[in-house]
Amino acid sequence: MATTTEITSPTLQLAQQLIARESVTPIDDGCQELLAARLAKLGFSNETMVFEDTTNLWSRRNQQGPVFCFAGHTDVVPSGPVKEWISPPFSPSLRDGYLYGRGAADMKGSLAAMIVATERFVTARPEHQGSIAFLITSDEEGPFINGTTRVIDTLEARQEKITWCLVGEPSSTKRLGDTVKNGRRGSLTGFLTINGIQGHVAYPHLAKNPVHLVAPALAELVNTHWDHGNEFFPPTTFQISNVHSGTGAGNVIPGSCEVQFNFRYSTEVTAVELQNRVTDILEQHDLSFHLSWTHNGAPFLTDHGDLVDATCAAIQAVTGQATELSTAGGTSDGRFIAPTGAQVIELGPVNATIHKVNECVKATDLDILTDVYEAILERLLC
Amino acid sequence: MATTTEITSPTLQLAQQLIARESVTPIDDGCQELLAARLAKLGFSNETMVFEDTTNLWSRRNQQGPVFCFAGHTDVVPSGPVKEWISPPFSPSLRDGYLYGRGAADMKGSLAAMIVATERFVTARPEHQGSIAFLITSDEEGPFINGTTRVIDTLEARQEKITWCLVGEPSSTKRLGDTVKNGRRGSLTGFLTINGIQGHVAYPHLAKNPVHLVAPALAELVNTHWDHGNEFFPPTTFQISNVHSGTGAGNVIPGSCEVQFNFRYSTEVTAVELQNRVTDILEQHDLSFHLSWTHNGAPFLTDHGDLVDATCAAIQAVTGQATELSTAGGTSDGRFIAPTGAQVIELGPVNATIHKVNECVKATDLDILTDVYEAILERLLC
Ligand SMILES: [Zn+2]
Ligand SMILES: [Zn+2]
Repeated sequence: MATTTEITSPTLQLAQQLIARESVTPIDDGCQELLAARLAKLGFSNETMVFEDTTNLWSRRNQQGPVFCFAGHTDVVPSGPVKEWISPPFSPSLRDGYLYGRGAADMKGSLAAMIVATERFVTARPEHQGSIAFLITSDEEGPFINGTTRVIDTLEARQEKITWCLVGEPSSTKRLGDTVKNGRRGSLTGFLTINGIQGHVAYPHLAKNPVHLVAPALAELVNTHWDHGNEFFPPTTFQISNVHSGTGAGNVIPGSCEVQFNFRYSTEVTAVELQNRVTDILEQHDLSFHLSWTHNGAPFLTDHGDLVDATCAAIQAVTGQATELSTAGGTSDGRFIAPTGAQVIELGPVNATIHKVNECVKATDLDILTDVYEAILERLLC
Repeated sequence: MATTTEITSPTLQLAQQLIARESVTPIDDGCQELLAARLAKLGFSNETMVFEDTTNLWSRRNQQGPVFCFAGHTDVVPSGPVKEWISPPFSPSLRDGYLYGRGAADMKGSLAAMIVATERFVTARPEHQGSIAFLITSDEEGPFINGTTRVIDTLEARQEKITWCLVGEPSSTKRLGDTVKNGRRGSLTGFLTINGIQGHVAYPHLAKNPVHLVAPALAELVNTHWDHGNEFFPPTTFQISNVHSGTGAGNVIPGSCEVQFNFRYSTEVTAVELQNRVTDILEQHDLSFHLSWTHNGAPFLTDHGDLVDATCAAIQAVTGQATELSTAGGTSDGRFIAPTGAQVIELGPVNATIHKVNECVKATDLDILTDVYEAILERLLC
């Protein structure tokens, strides 16, 4: 069982309180209330913004700039098969130096670390420069319609700006702090319908098989090099996520074929360029098609600057290790914050178990993360 | 409304009695009993063969060879939306010279025509040569497991052979008798699973997208010329009937891709050759796959001979028109009968409305068909 040392770490204690709340997207289940109460004691003003099914918290200490903001989410993905969990997903459990539970790494551990880091920092430096803010949502893992994007809209409308934004997403791969995300690729999804003419397989001359028509076009899309990436971004990737065609019957030529695909793209291309190139390829294959798009987010990049420098220096100082800047991986709410002009980076625990059963985080990592977060505040606001 | 002439045609009367029975596959609903009773009066021996859910009738007059057999089915496909029928599908209706109802053309009209033709022929020629037989099933439109194939197995087991088989399928395209099927292409279905590795679209290097892997192979399969056909068969065709891949989620690279396809093939290739060529193409594309096959039937062909000659001559004599021999179109139960060594042709009404709402047949065509069937019996058995 857990040792006394582990139990008494304030970050671990708060992380466990958060994990015990069953806050599956978009449910917050009182997590934000807990955070807001702790922040209120430090002189933060709390503003709860409820949009539809989503609860958001905007909490800020001081009115002057520059504004350091921690962005995070209280929601978690569903537990998956509860039977496969060694301890129940919403019963935090310390075993062999690891804290287990849904959200331990993504991202209730980070939330706890930043709250405790802020408590220490504000207590030690009540007269710090600038402002500290928290932008917390319960809809990061979901459709991201009523979460960060709407809080940012609200802030923008009243011209409230974030200077530096630290997103608590689990960015580390092997060791805490080995990787910081200083940008993310853009994400663009295409919904393609190829129109054919349904018929009987015995009479193909009376039909037009949409799968036959689209196969060479898909082969070309799959083999296309969209760009070469650059110093900060890997080359743009194209992935087909869904293909569906056919009635189920073996003797019917389908009338249409549905294809869904996704681009993760670098700053070397734009969403419009990608859309045009896909359309060109489909038109060259002489297809009758309907194509619609969802733009999930443009790529963003925070090049070297105050925030990146402070973060790397803080990691170096606390852990003695160097950090890699990366733009790889999935999207995060950083994409909604970067367009406001904020510098944005992501730093959080090791992401090896996120969204899986038996999600966990090394208990000591949460305390190290607390130290790193505090060191970042010291570098930026003193 | 119907004229007296129409109502009193014996073929039309019997066709209407059959249409009034709701014999959707595999239900016979008493159709075969009706036919058997008529045949018994002519000295036929009736043998009902029930296999699982399917009722079959083997009825034969005389024991000597040669054996002329009429093969047909009492089952019909479902009516489709009843609202779209001008008259109810199972209430035979004569309008403007056409008999409407499910099965009018496929193939209760043919059954009625052959019963009436046989009655006339046997009455006129009670001492005819050879034997006359009827092979009737209630599972032609269904999974064809317990129908003609099992009756043929039974006959083969007791070495009872058919010399000439006339299948009553609606073979005519524009005018009664314009087309006779003297063979059918083979049908071979492939079930292909491409194995990939599931993953997140943001991390394609950790996954293997089965749609990406298979797209160039499908493009090649679609563009392959399998043969050039021959005098009797059009070139072999390949059609993809179903493709399914993806979890529905837009950010997941699917773990596998399912593809179902069908060959309609000529006598210039064999099923085994087609299987090997598909496997070769998939292997050349370096795919990890599982491929299974269903062989729905080998191609068969009845070249010129007694049966084809008698049929063409009978059509010429009754209608004054020439006939085209064709192997195009879908499968029929002829594929189960031809392998026994029987000559097999298909001759029936115009097929324009089969399997559709408001299925119909020209009333006078059923009387002409009766005359043609009788003329065939005269040519073969006198
Ligand atoms: Zn997260
Ligand atoms: Zn039929």
